[in-house]
Amino acid sequence: MTRGSTVNPDSPVFNPKKFLATERDNSKINITQLNHFLESTPENSRLVRSLIDQIVNDPILKTQTNYYDNEILKEREQTLKKIARLSLYMEQDIKTVRHSFRNKDLLKSLQDEQENANTLTNKDISIFDKRLSLIAMIDPQLSTRVGVHLGLFGNCIKGNGTDEQIKYWLQTKGALFIKGIYGCFAMTELGHGSNVAQMQTTATYNPEDDTFIINTPNLTATKWWIGGAAHSATHSVAYCRLIVNGKDYGVKTFVVPLRNITTFDLLPGISIGDLGKKMGRDGIDNGWIQYKNVVIPREYMLSRFTKVVKDPQTGVPTVKTQPQLDQISGYSALLSGRVNMVMDSFRFGSRFTTIATRYAVGRQQFANTKDSPETQLINYPLHQYRLIPQIAITYLISPVAFDLLDNYYTTLEELYTASSNKSSSASLDLVSKKLKNLFVDSAALKATNTWLVAQLIDELRQSCGGHGYSQYNGFGKGYNDWVVQCTWEGDNNILSLTAAKSIVKKFVDAALKGKYNSSLDEHSFDYLNPTNIMKIMSTSSSPYFEFKEGGGEDDNQDYRTIWGVMLVKLIAHIAKQIRKTNDPDMMSKSLVMVSKFHSIQLMLKCFETKLNNKKTSDPKTREILWKLYKLFSLYFIDKHSGEFQQFKILKPDQVTNVIQKKLLQLLPEIRTECIALTDAFKLPDEVLNAPIGYYDGDIYQNYFNEIIQNNPVEKTEAGKPPYVDLLLKTLHRGYTFDEALGGSSDSSILEKLSK
Amino acid sequence: MTRGSTVNPDSPVFNPKKFLATERDNSKINITQLNHFLESTPENSRLVRSLIDQIVNDPILKTQTNYYDNEILKEREQTLKKIARLSLYMEQDIKTVRHSFRNKDLLKSLQDEQENANTLTNKDISIFDKRLSLIAMIDPQLSTRVGVHLGLFGNCIKGNGTDEQIKYWLQTKGALFIKGIYGCFAMTELGHGSNVAQMQTTATYNPEDDTFIINTPNLTATKWWIGGAAHSATHSVAYCRLIVNGKDYGVKTFVVPLRNITTFDLLPGISIGDLGKKMGRDGIDNGWIQYKNVVIPREYMLSRFTKVVKDPQTGVPTVKTQPQLDQISGYSALLSGRVNMVMDSFRFGSRFTTIATRYAVGRQQFANTKDSPETQLINYPLHQYRLIPQIAITYLISPVAFDLLDNYYTTLEELYTASSNKSSSASLDLVSKKLKNLFVDSAALKATNTWLVAQLIDELRQSCGGHGYSQYNGFGKGYNDWVVQCTWEGDNNILSLTAAKSIVKKFVDAALKGKYNSSLDEHSFDYLNPTNIMKIMSTSSSPYFEFKEGGGEDDNQDYRTIWGVMLVKLIAHIAKQIRKTNDPDMMSKSLVMVSKFHSIQLMLKCFETKLNNKKTSDPKTREILWKLYKLFSLYFIDKHSGEFQQFKILKPDQVTNVIQKKLLQLLPEIRTECIALTDAFKLPDEVLNAPIGYYDGDIYQNYFNEIIQNNPVEKTEAGKPPYVDLLLKTLHRGYTFDEALGGSSDSSILEKLSK
Repeated sequence: MTRGSTVNPDSPVFNPKKFLATERDNSKINITQLNHFLESTPENSRLVRSLIDQIVNDPILKTQTNYYDNEILKEREQTLKKIARLSLYMEQDIKTVRHSFRNKDLLKSLQDEQENANTLTNKDISIFDKRLSLIAMIDPQLSTRVGVHLGLFGNCIKGNGTDEQIKYWLQTKGALFIKGIYGCFAMTELGHGSNVAQMQTTATYNPEDDTFIINTPNLTATKWWIGGAAHSATHSVAYCRLIVNGKDYGVKTFVVPLRNITTFDLLPGISIGDLGKKMGRDGIDNGWIQYKNVVIPREYMLSRFTKVVKDPQTGVPTVKTQPQLDQISGYSALLSGRVNMVMDSFRFGSRFTTIATRYAVGRQQFANTKDSPETQLINYPLHQYRLIPQIAITYLISPVAFDLLDNYYTTLEELYTASSNKSSSASLDLVSKKLKNLFVDSAALKATNTWLVAQLIDELRQSCGGHGYSQYNGFGKGYNDWVVQCTWEGDNNILSLTAAKSIVKKFVDAALKGKYNSSLDEHSFDYLNPTNIMKIMSTSSSPYFEFKEGGGEDDNQDYRTIWGVMLVKLIAHIAKQIRKTNDPDMMSKSLVMVSKFHSIQLMLKCFETKLNNKKTSDPKTREILWKLYKLFSLYFIDKHSGEFQQFKILKPDQVTNVIQKKLLQLLPEIRTECIALTDAFKLPDEVLNAPIGYYDGDIYQNYFNEIIQNNPVEKTEAGKPPYVDLLLKTLHRGYTFDEALGGSSDSSILEKLSK
Repeated sequence: MTRGSTVNPDSPVFNPKKFLATERDNSKINITQLNHFLESTPENSRLVRSLIDQIVNDPILKTQTNYYDNEILKEREQTLKKIARLSLYMEQDIKTVRHSFRNKDLLKSLQDEQENANTLTNKDISIFDKRLSLIAMIDPQLSTRVGVHLGLFGNCIKGNGTDEQIKYWLQTKGALFIKGIYGCFAMTELGHGSNVAQMQTTATYNPEDDTFIINTPNLTATKWWIGGAAHSATHSVAYCRLIVNGKDYGVKTFVVPLRNITTFDLLPGISIGDLGKKMGRDGIDNGWIQYKNVVIPREYMLSRFTKVVKDPQTGVPTVKTQPQLDQISGYSALLSGRVNMVMDSFRFGSRFTTIATRYAVGRQQFANTKDSPETQLINYPLHQYRLIPQIAITYLISPVAFDLLDNYYTTLEELYTASSNKSSSASLDLVSKKLKNLFVDSAALKATNTWLVAQLIDELRQSCGGHGYSQYNGFGKGYNDWVVQCTWEGDNNILSLTAAKSIVKKFVDAALKGKYNSSLDEHSFDYLNPTNIMKIMSTSSSPYFEFKEGGGEDDNQDYRTIWGVMLVKLIAHIAKQIRKTNDPDMMSKSLVMVSKFHSIQLMLKCFETKLNNKKTSDPKTREILWKLYKLFSLYFIDKHSGEFQQFKILKPDQVTNVIQKKLLQLLPEIRTECIALTDAFKLPDEVLNAPIGYYDGDIYQNYFNEIIQNNPVEKTEAGKPPYVDLLLKTLHRGYTFDEALGGSSDSSILEKLSK
């Protein structure tokens, strides 16, 4: 029964393939239009397909179910092999963007210090970035391990280095192309994570040699969790306290070499260790680093905004700094990670909803009557409630993820221009305000969406019953790899609080001082428009929210507007309490909610904006997308019906007769297109890497085949474990407990012994 | 810095040990009384301590942090070694209960078929059961792997076998003592989990040979997830459809041998494979089994309630059955597992709250002012909200877990007596009603508490930041091992629905027919007392709930009563809807809530009952226990404030001014005793197996030491991975992209080529 041919394709008992085929036959929506909606444009959709096609067919980059069996060292080695392969793709991707296959080797000229070649732009690496982002869905540890070098190490140099420093380390030395040096990002310490300003590693200026001496002053200052440190990094960018003439200038960044790039020996004063096993992502070689009197030239300090200058006459060193920009740039290395994690949330969500939806359609359980065939899981209302909102969540993440990414690139470009061109302080001021909004949005969206997807994976794993627990169906490693996203690049709770506190401040400015910059704030904070606030806060006569029932697309906006009302009332309540107690921390629980609700309304807004551009023309397809929009809103209103009633936005009867009723009505309507909706993600089986979710729906045969393939007959003999002797010895231990004592408990013998 | 001596104990920066010591110095409660409360009695507390002491000091049974590094085969072998060791403890534990160290070997006489020795009772194995239950907290895969044999295999035989069959398989053959044979429980199939009645494996009676022929008719009928099958089982109890004379009598149980007990070769017709990697618990050798015309004697069918009898004259076989008991017994094998999982929830909860609480006290992050020391995590209101309710949940699970276990043993004993003594049908009827209530309680409590603890582990892991993601701090494996509890022995959603449907039926009986059996239902369902229902449903004039404010202990009961009100109103609503639509499945989402709310009120009731017996005499200790009780109730009221407002039990302002206010007031009050409350679990460091949670609070040093110990310097050389050559080759690839093409993109050459 291990061969497909022994299965009766017309068996009345189980034929999941037919179930899936039927769903596809009956679908009335346009999958191509859906996919273009999800990928933003037809061009991007094509690019994404072609990149995925390349990744899953590449003999080194592809993953199969045996991927789940790797031990830690194997994972590390395989990941490095993939990085070596990726470095070649990177060169090709840059050439593709630049159309430079016919000229003198582009990278060589970028590396050549003599030539005045221009630098790489974000556009130049746009294809490769997308490639990495897609790999994050298939093999997350790979994209992180190379992302630490290219993203964290690279962005830290780009954000904090002078133009010459950027050119030297990234181009001349080759770091940008994963050549010459491999970097790690030595920020976190054993005793300090989120609180960057309190890092304890020191960089003390030594005027005699014009050098810095890097030191780890105590155990808790050990650099910790440093991806790449254990095995691969030749250089670190280290966050250290700048000490000049005994004065502490706060935390700055320094390039500190770790290993001899020719022999890979650790350099003097460098002590490094492996952090070993983690909950997931063991392919990343996270390590710890201690610096003991490590000497680096003064010029290795990244000095775009802060510089130690030695007076040529007196030899006295002074510190020159641009505090405003220095602070912004200090955090910008983490910003890219946060923005990308929102896109990761969409990709991961699409992977696991596809698997679980196909399983729900193919799997049967319990019959309505004794003689009827068993019911497909998807036809149970409870199963619909568990699964379909997760599809809606995934659909709602996509538009906001693309929007945030665009916003990030635009704003960073503006910042770079403003900071290098000696622009007016007004334009610098404007871009720093934009950056602040971006910080709020990215923090709230990173926290909210990584949490949502962690729950999504867990809920959907449970919805696949026991088979969800098999490592070969991807949920286990998927979850373990995923959940660190809730912690790194800013802990979700801390990020939520930070974002919410900024939003509360915006509210206070708008409500009390009428301050509201519509060109800046329209995009994400239109609910904080003073007119809107006034309207909401003054509707004491008829305070409850009513959904318009026209049925036109314009009426759908109500499903977002209600979240604006919720936000204004909740924030007003928080602001009032804080005014009373002067202790914002006491309102933390509500502040986390503000961050979540802000994200929900922003997701609805980006979705609505995208759908309103009418590029999705097919009416049935538009209809299902609007249904997902409504479901998303209703699902979370229902989850938070406590707050909606507490703040008198909904009456108890509205919760029952409007919210919950509409919610339960939508589920079976969307259910009819659930296969089409997940097919529209267009993820090939190789990306899903979970046999119960493969396209053909042949759940049992696919799953059985993978199990057999990954667990061949024991070398010792079928069904005999290598430790069979121990088993036999245990089962056939011939002695009794008394005999094992080497004495006896026989009463006649005991009697003798007591004489 | 790897030695303790290099750390300055008076460092102003970080001294987590001092923080923990201070908490202990300032505690005003009695830890011993708390522990007696948690362990039910002083005797049990002593027993638990001594068993734990033995386990964590046993050279084979103990676990250390290197446990987290094991690969799958190592896990399996190590688990088997531990089982061999446990078999010896088992014999000793039985002798201890029986005080039989001085007589003829007890087990030998139990095994001797000639002697009419009595059988083992639940009391006989009570110490060993407790030992296993404690091991479930330390090494869950071990307790499951041996539990499948002793619990599932053994209980299935006990529940479905005749007295002679029980004696033969369990005592004479030695299964009960892990001797002679090793059993597995072949229920689940690839295509069927929860729906036992639809299993497809067949046992066809062959009158010619007076045998059964066991067959796996198709791929989906493959027995799947069978713990012990892959490596260790010599026998299975197989759930098969009984086919006699072509007629299908439904699913019954059969003892089917799998392996030659002397050579361990697979027997004819048996095909077995390994299921390989799972999300967790890889120490269990789950496998699949296919039966191809496997012949077993008729007498291997377990025949306590259903028997195939051959007419001695005509040779015609007939099937005799006691349908009522047959059905009950069919499920009872899973009952023990469910009951034990509630106890597991308490133990797992206590392990992870201890770790996270100590970390929260020792860890500092951000300072209030620039010069003040950084604040301990535990002093942030948000951190209190994340952590302290988890302590309350753990405390509230303990009393219900002990209560359920007692209830289970008593009821099973009564069932056994009633079914074997040809008792009156009245007494059989009574015990089957008790059993039904037990099914409801165990289903609801299993589902609710395994979900709560899954969330607890996840939330507390996040509360430990990055260090929670290290495998050596236990959360990763803890979570992965834990979450299968939400799926096996009855999927949590299915169990919740089943329990809730029974509760709704009870409500309808009580409300409409006045049916309520106070002696039976008082314990768990007192809120369904018709008088109570009437009172709640008729209070239209002043419908809202008011908490009494006297402050006496008697007033505390309000915190439970409100849940009874919630349940009655919610169930009444559900019943009304079902009457309208006649489709209970449409109310599934609310039904799952009923199961959860029922559990919450039952947990409050058991806690209150235990505290009211006044054995905990110290006033400060009683006070803190009442605070936990209130916090538990308020925490969940707040989480479900949507329902409390929707069903008009609380007004919006009450949510703000009573529930949320009281909740936020309690947190800092309980916070002052959080270390004492978790110390009171009395879990030694070896049980926690997570250095950031060890007793002395020396977080950083302990953690660093374990990391170093488990990740020694690479064999290749410090900091050099075994795959260093690949790294160097990648970084120093000297060729350009063009050179790698083996051609050129130089325009002059290209020009030549186009000529």
